[in-house]
Amino acid sequence: MSLKKSKIPKDIKNQLFEARKSSHILANLDVSIKNQILYEISTKIKENASLILEENAKDISDAKRLYEKGELSLSLCDRLLLNESKIEQMAIYCENVAELPNPTGNILDATCLDVGLDLYKVTCPIGVILMIFESRPDALIQISALGLKSGNSVILKGGKEASHSNRILVKIIREAFVLKNDFPKNSISLVETRVEVDELVKLSADLDLIIPRGSNQLVQHIQRKSLIPVLGHADGICHVFLDHAADEIKSKSVVLDSKLNYPAVCNSLETLLVHQNYSNKWLAYILLKMQDSGVEIRVCNETKKRLKTYKSLILKNAVNEDWKTEYVDLIISVKSVDSAEEAVMHINHFGSKHTDSIVTENKELAEWFLNSVDSAGVFWNASTRFADGFRYGLGAEVGVSNAKIHARGPVGLEGLITYKYKLYGNGQGVEEYDDGKRQFIHKKINF
Amino acid sequence: MSLKKSKIPKDIKNQLFEARKSSHILANLDVSIKNQILYEISTKIKENASLILEENAKDISDAKRLYEKGELSLSLCDRLLLNESKIEQMAIYCENVAELPNPTGNILDATCLDVGLDLYKVTCPIGVILMIFESRPDALIQISALGLKSGNSVILKGGKEASHSNRILVKIIREAFVLKNDFPKNSISLVETRVEVDELVKLSADLDLIIPRGSNQLVQHIQRKSLIPVLGHADGICHVFLDHAADEIKSKSVVLDSKLNYPAVCNSLETLLVHQNYSNKWLAYILLKMQDSGVEIRVCNETKKRLKTYKSLILKNAVNEDWKTEYVDLIISVKSVDSAEEAVMHINHFGSKHTDSIVTENKELAEWFLNSVDSAGVFWNASTRFADGFRYGLGAEVGVSNAKIHARGPVGLEGLITYKYKLYGNGQGVEEYDDGKRQFIHKKINF
Repeated sequence: MSLKKSKIPKDIKNQLFEARKSSHILANLDVSIKNQILYEISTKIKENASLILEENAKDISDAKRLYEKGELSLSLCDRLLLNESKIEQMAIYCENVAELPNPTGNILDATCLDVGLDLYKVTCPIGVILMIFESRPDALIQISALGLKSGNSVILKGGKEASHSNRILVKIIREAFVLKNDFPKNSISLVETRVEVDELVKLSADLDLIIPRGSNQLVQHIQRKSLIPVLGHADGICHVFLDHAADEIKSKSVVLDSKLNYPAVCNSLETLLVHQNYSNKWLAYILLKMQDSGVEIRVCNETKKRLKTYKSLILKNAVNEDWKTEYVDLIISVKSVDSAEEAVMHINHFGSKHTDSIVTENKELAEWFLNSVDSAGVFWNASTRFADGFRYGLGAEVGVSNAKIHARGPVGLEGLITYKYKLYGNGQGVEEYDDGKRQFIHKKINF
Repeated sequence: MSLKKSKIPKDIKNQLFEARKSSHILANLDVSIKNQILYEISTKIKENASLILEENAKDISDAKRLYEKGELSLSLCDRLLLNESKIEQMAIYCENVAELPNPTGNILDATCLDVGLDLYKVTCPIGVILMIFESRPDALIQISALGLKSGNSVILKGGKEASHSNRILVKIIREAFVLKNDFPKNSISLVETRVEVDELVKLSADLDLIIPRGSNQLVQHIQRKSLIPVLGHADGICHVFLDHAADEIKSKSVVLDSKLNYPAVCNSLETLLVHQNYSNKWLAYILLKMQDSGVEIRVCNETKKRLKTYKSLILKNAVNEDWKTEYVDLIISVKSVDSAEEAVMHINHFGSKHTDSIVTENKELAEWFLNSVDSAGVFWNASTRFADGFRYGLGAEVGVSNAKIHARGPVGLEGLITYKYKLYGNGQGVEEYDDGKRQFIHKKINF
């Protein structure tokens, strides 16, 4: 297998046209064919493991050079690195996606409009999706597998640091397509530069959805340029609210897990809100635990006052900017509130509609909080870190969306499908219904 | 009741803030309260019928002046006009919406993640919606009723020709809110100028959804300016494809109804695609019927050739522009195609993803067509005019969407809702699952 054969179409317009054509063929493919292709990709990945590692080594050596020049972070280099175990995981991932239930062709609703005139609302692929992701090359396999399973054409834009790895992976995927004669090979294609992405976004009327997974900046850049929906994956400014009726042990467990389990990710805790009547002793105890784990604590004036007798606590002053900051780091901001209402107002104003949790034994208050907080995930007595596709049991995760429509929070395969209305008639027109000669019956059809 | 009291907040930012606050209260309101408010609006509309007519008369007299100057069309004046019957219909509409099932708080999915850790995916309002609509003042009542029922705050922007009518209607709605002490009066508010809309769209991070109902131009203008999803209602370039295996009577019925029933609307037929082996005699017969009804017929070269013996048919030459034109008028374009594949390619390329129909007795081909055509409505042996919320039996229609995600085609109340994940725990963190001390069970909960 020579890399020279792997042609990436240069002409973006043509690439988009081919992706569109492929999407129409995919829309008619039986799920068994899509699954066979997924197993074939898995096989090809395993067969070509050493080739993948060779190409990945080129990216790593380029990245190391950039790191030495100070142009790339070490963590980025780490995320770029593939090894045999990661390659095996990619292969298994494809098999897992093959085993998921078919997300398309499912009837959502069915109505008999009249005798011989039946309306079905049926799930179907969205069409052509542009997926923009960061440097992890294994993300390419995940996204491609989910795209294939859901019957969408996917145009992939990976990080340029991973270009050798991405190219070989797309080449392997396309070689797997050969298994089935009619399988549309442009179902998966690659663009490599930001310029190409900007061109694609300009043609966005010919795309159906853009899913950028990356920084807030990236998501907003795409949103500004795009005419079509963008399923962004950006900030998580998550809150925990400790109500005065909170159980102390639960408070400790929820707060510490939310902050300390993995501070570098979007579903970790950034701002702790504490009811004025919550026990000062327990608050101090929880914050001391955090401090012992290396967390910097920034507090409002009120919190500073109530904790002033706890001399071993090192408390910095929080400023307004803190309430709107996603630290993704060992920093927490703490604010005292007079009421649950104030907590909700704060969350809805400063939060990012990601995930927010209340700790309380008051069931009625909890339910009110879950309804009032305008976030994708609203939790009662549970760590914000549960906001995750795997933990939710979604089977596969497209990403975590901070959009408010179509797909919110951790998004599974259903984020890659839409629906259409299929109407089955016998030559009917609406005229005789307008005339009152016939009446609609609108009877639900069991399915 | 004096109009002077009806204060429209001048400060857009403040208006948006108040709408947002109201939305958080609405999210917790019991459906019975929302329904009582809807009945109260109905009562108030009936009580204030003469006042509404007075205000509407001002709009009409302004509009007539503009019409005389040639600055407004007669059809626009017509649509502006309210009368007692229309006012009664508005009142009944509110009652009908009150009687619809509650769209929020419904469980979509439920999973027990572990003992004492239950995840519910529950429908909820979207938040704050900006609705832009044309001059019909009765649309204001429809949109407001749907917004209230679904628990959203709605900012309304009607046509400026209808400003007196719109103001009095919003005033009446807000007076109905007084029935319930805690009902948030800024759930419904009004903006009146395009400048205000542009300002709102700039603040679009604080809006959740924009629904423009109007021209293609309007929709695209909003889409270009907005950072958030726009549920557009624009062009309908609908097709009927007559396959060679089409039944002749069904062909005639579907084509004539699709074109002639109401040519001025988006779900009427614009381009007829005809298989090369479809009977020329029947094609001529159908087109003659159209011609008799005043339809101008524009055909491709191939169609011209096959119909050349039918001397009474007046056939103009279609140009490329015709295939992408929504005539919404007594004009039809006709194209011969070599195959169903060519028909599908044409529809997916030139169509507007609205509604397209195939006439054939070939069930397998029909199913292939329904899957391949990338439109919200795909019909077999039925008129495109069936694409409509009332005919679909949706109960209420928000509009007809040409978006591909969230809501496609005729959109009912479900277009105004989204979902959130509610997680009910006992103080759990993810740490013990990461450690392998506990395992997720991911068992479906019956609901």
